[in-house]
Amino acid sequence: MRHLELIGVDGLPEVRPGDDLGALIGARAKLQAGDVLVVAQKAVSKAEGRLVDLATVTAGDEAVRISSGLIARPDPRMVQVVLDESVRVLRSERVLITETRHGYVCANAGIDHSNTGGRGILTLLPLDPDSSAGKLRDRLREVTGVEVGVIVSDTFGRPWRLGIVNIALGVAGVPALVDLRGTPDDNGEALHATVLAVADDIASSAGLVMEKTARTPAVVVRGLALQGSGSGRDLIRPAAEDLFR
Amino acid sequence: MRHLELIGVDGLPEVRPGDDLGALIGARAKLQAGDVLVVAQKAVSKAEGRLVDLATVTAGDEAVRISSGLIARPDPRMVQVVLDESVRVLRSERVLITETRHGYVCANAGIDHSNTGGRGILTLLPLDPDSSAGKLRDRLREVTGVEVGVIVSDTFGRPWRLGIVNIALGVAGVPALVDLRGTPDDNGEALHATVLAVADDIASSAGLVMEKTARTPAVVVRGLALQGSGSGRDLIRPAAEDLFR
Repeated sequence: MRHLELIGVDGLPEVRPGDDLGALIGARAKLQAGDVLVVAQKAVSKAEGRLVDLATVTAGDEAVRISSGLIARPDPRMVQVVLDESVRVLRSERVLITETRHGYVCANAGIDHSNTGGRGILTLLPLDPDSSAGKLRDRLREVTGVEVGVIVSDTFGRPWRLGIVNIALGVAGVPALVDLRGTPDDNGEALHATVLAVADDIASSAGLVMEKTARTPAVVVRGLALQGSGSGRDLIRPAAEDLFR
Repeated sequence: MRHLELIGVDGLPEVRPGDDLGALIGARAKLQAGDVLVVAQKAVSKAEGRLVDLATVTAGDEAVRISSGLIARPDPRMVQVVLDESVRVLRSERVLITETRHGYVCANAGIDHSNTGGRGILTLLPLDPDSSAGKLRDRLREVTGVEVGVIVSDTFGRPWRLGIVNIALGVAGVPALVDLRGTPDDNGEALHATVLAVADDIASSAGLVMEKTARTPAVVVRGLALQGSGSGRDLIRPAAEDLFR
């Protein structure tokens, strides 16, 4: 019988720039070899100091224009920060969907102003979420002696479907995709087009234990039997192959 | 500490049209009140007889034309079945993305030819996945005496991201969306735009236990503390509000 456990890491303090996230989590999660730790991007971004104080931002003309067309009428300075983090604007009517410098397509470049630790403070996505995941994995090994996988997750909206789901931004020590193409099915025919986005499914599962308004930014996923190691970049569809960009 | 368990339901036989899926699952899953049972669409479709034998299909001109432009060069009769199940074609170059009669936007209208129980046999999506979920929930209550939630899931691709993830088609006895809008965050500010697609996160988590090539079409999710009840339709973004359709 396949059996998985999802265990919230309790008792983490509010994370601040410079905090040793690996030590904070390692002291509270009873990690076992083969576990995958899913950590919310916001905790990682805070520890890495990826914060912007709106008071230091001046909105340009484009940011002011875009802001006026958005349903939420965000502070134009926030729109400016989104533009600064983006390489391309996909939609700027009603909601602002951009492609970030990493290649993620999401609302507001993943920038957030809730649970940031203070009013007027924005969190930005980590500069390199795979590197963030890898460093956290290394630190957890140092602190606990245990080899785990790490996924840095965030909640993204989707076209066609309502609501946000947790997805994998950065990945270390666990595969991002599991390619079943060519594996025979029960009829002996090849399974076409079956590449599982397993790191996204793992992030989603952890999203059930994280609570948006509570402080459970880290979740242990136990019982996965996955081989190999991938990257969050594996999950980004190249723009040239993307029919909806 | 928040703690969830995901338990695969083992030992299910190959499902055939007319099978009593609730009795088959109820006899093998040790269900507890409050559990959510996630069942793969293919098992539901087989039990409901949502099967098409390609030998009975004649491809029309549009199906022949579309097939020749697709990377997989599918049997034009399969394309004909996809068109029959769809109300709109979104993309037909390289891959075939349509909007189904239910409103789902996905590849090949969710029609599949792997693990269907025989060569040349296609599975179609259930006619009404919410009704399928509700009937299975009722039958599980009859058979086991236990009240559970039910999600009928399928694996869908996504724009912008590679790989497929498990999502919720039909929902009964469990919410589809959890709306946190207006809930104060840790700063006392409202959490904007935070509607969690919890049924999709649940389906994704179960996807980690289902195996595409093995017979684990049903997974018990234990430990969720969700109130209320939703519908798979709650998760479908209305076409008029969809910026990418």
